Amino acid sequence: MTYTDTNKAKEYLNKIAKLVEVELDRYIPLEEPESLFTAMRYSLLGGGKRIRAALAALTAYGEEELAMPAACALEMVHAYSLIHDDLPGMDNDDFRRGKPSCHKAFDEATALLAGDALLTKAFEVVLETKNNPLLVTLELAKAAGASGMVGGQVLDLASEGKKISYDELKVIHSKKTGALITVALRMGALAAKRENMLAKYTIYGEQLGLAFQITDDILDVTGDATLLGKTLGKDATQGKSTYPRLFGLEKSQQLAKEAVEKAILAIEGVPGEEILSGLANYILVREK
Amino acid sequence: MTYTDTNKAKEYLNKIAKLVEVELDRYIPLEEPESLFTAMRYSLLGGGKRIRAALAALTAYGEEELAMPAACALEMVHAYSLIHDDLPGMDNDDFRRGKPSCHKAFDEATALLAGDALLTKAFEVVLETKNNPLLVTLELAKAAGASGMVGGQVLDLASEGKKISYDELKVIHSKKTGALITVALRMGALAAKRENMLAKYTIYGEQLGLAFQITDDILDVTGDATLLGKTLGKDATQGKSTYPRLFGLEKSQQLAKEAVEKAILAIEGVPGEEILSGLANYILVREK
Repeated sequence: MTYTDTNKAKEYLNKIAKLVEVELDRYIPLEEPESLFTAMRYSLLGGGKRIRAALAALTAYGEEELAMPAACALEMVHAYSLIHDDLPGMDNDDFRRGKPSCHKAFDEATALLAGDALLTKAFEVVLETKNNPLLVTLELAKAAGASGMVGGQVLDLASEGKKISYDELKVIHSKKTGALITVALRMGALAAKRENMLAKYTIYGEQLGLAFQITDDILDVTGDATLLGKTLGKDATQGKSTYPRLFGLEKSQQLAKEAVEKAILAIEGVPGEEILSGLANYILVREK
Repeated sequence: MTYTDTNKAKEYLNKIAKLVEVELDRYIPLEEPESLFTAMRYSLLGGGKRIRAALAALTAYGEEELAMPAACALEMVHAYSLIHDDLPGMDNDDFRRGKPSCHKAFDEATALLAGDALLTKAFEVVLETKNNPLLVTLELAKAAGASGMVGGQVLDLASEGKKISYDELKVIHSKKTGALITVALRMGALAAKRENMLAKYTIYGEQLGLAFQITDDILDVTGDATLLGKTLGKDATQGKSTYPRLFGLEKSQQLAKEAVEKAILAIEGVPGEEILSGLANYILVREK
C-alpha cells in the first residue's frame, strides 16, 4: 500500500522542526566569542525544512528522542555546508533562506569560522547518542567527508561549464546531497537499534535523495524566488549540469516520480511507513 | 629532577613524525575526487614538526600505538586550521612551511573544501581509538570548536589593530594554540588509560602551549624566514598583539622560560618525564 497523502508528513516535519529548533538553541547558546556564536546561530536557527532531522527522527519512529542528537548534528552539518557553499570563493551567493547569507550578514572570516565551528559542534553533539554512539558518529563522518558530501561539492564545482554525462551527474548528487540524506536515515535507525531495517532505509534514502536533487534543479528553473528565499537561475548562469538541462523539464519530473516510487516501495512495512511515504510524495510537489 | 637535554626529545619528535607520516599517508590515500585528495595530502603530508602528535604519543609513552589514531587526528585538525587560516578572507598568507599555501597551490574553493574534509576525516580517524574512544573524540571536538581553537581564531582576528591587555592575550592564545596542545596530551593519556595523570598533563600542556605561543611570537620578529618557511613580520604588519609588542623581547623570553619551568615541574614522576621535560626546553631554544 502506498500513501499519497502528504499532510501527515508535513505535520510530522513541522513537529520535528519545532523540537529540533529548541534543541539547537540549547546546544548553541550565545556564548563568547559573541560574534562567532551569533553567526552560528544566525545560520543554524529559525529556518530550513529540517528534512535531515526529520529523516533521522522517522527511522526512530515512536522513539524519536533517541535520534535527537543525530538529528541536531545533521542540521549543524547541513548549516555549515550552506555557509561554506555561499562564500565568495565558492558559489558566491548573497542570499540564503530569504536573508543575507552568513558572510554578507557578518564577514567572510566569521562565516568561514562559524562553518568550521558548526561542523566541529556536530561531532560533539552526535557523541551524546545513547545507542551505538560510535557507529552513529562514524556514519556521519564518512557521509560528510571527502568521499561523501565534501567530495560531491568538489565534483559539482569541477563540472561547472562542462557537459557531463547522466552517470557523472548521478555520482555528484549522490555524494553532494544524497550522502547526508541517506545517512540521516541510517543514523536514526542505528540510534533506535533498528539495524535490521538499515538496508531498506538506505534504498529509500538513495532514491529520496535523487528525487530531492531533481526537484531542486527543477525549482531553480520554475520556482518562486520569494517562496524559496534564494536567487534562482543560478544553475544556468554558472553553467551547471542539471536534470532540466540534460533531460528537459518533463522528463526530469518523470525521473523524480520514478525515484519516489522506488523509495516508497523499499520501506514497505517499516514503522512510520505512512509518513515516510507521504514525505517522499511531498518532495515531488513541494514549492520550496 | 629536571632534564635540560633536548636531544632525546628531538629524537623522539623525529621518530613520531616518521610513524605519523606513514599513518597519515595510509589514512588519506589518493582517491577520487583527485583534486580534493591531492590538496588534502599536499597540506597534511611531508611537513611540520608534528608536535601535537608527539604530545599524544608521549602521554601514552611505552604504548604509543594506542595513541596513534588520536595523534593522526590532531595533525589533521592542525593542518585544516592552517589551510583555513591562510585563506584570503582570513590571514591571506601565500606561504606555509616553505611552500605555497594550499589556496595558492590549488584554488580557494579546493583549499576551503580540503580543510573541511580534513576536519571531518579527523573525527573518522579518532573514533578508531581502542580505549575510551567516546571520551577521546569528545575531547577533540571540544578543544577544536567554538569554545576552543576556532573561538581563539575569532578573538585573534578581532584583536588585530587593537591594544589588548595581557589577560586578553592569554585567553586568545590559550584557545587558539593552547587548546589543541593540551588536548593532545589529554587524548593520549585517555587512550592509554592513564586517567590518573590527566591533571598533571593538563598543567604541563597549558604551560607548554603558553611557551610555544610566546616563542612563536618571538620567532616572527627574530626568526629566519627560510628556516621557518613562512613570511615573517606579519604580526606587526597586521597590528597583532604579541608578547614582544606587549613586553619587549627580553621579558617575553623570560615569560617563556617561566612557563617551561612550570610545565616541567608539573610532570614530575610521569612516564616519559625525561622526554616531556626535554621537549619543553626544546620549545625554548627552537629556531623553527
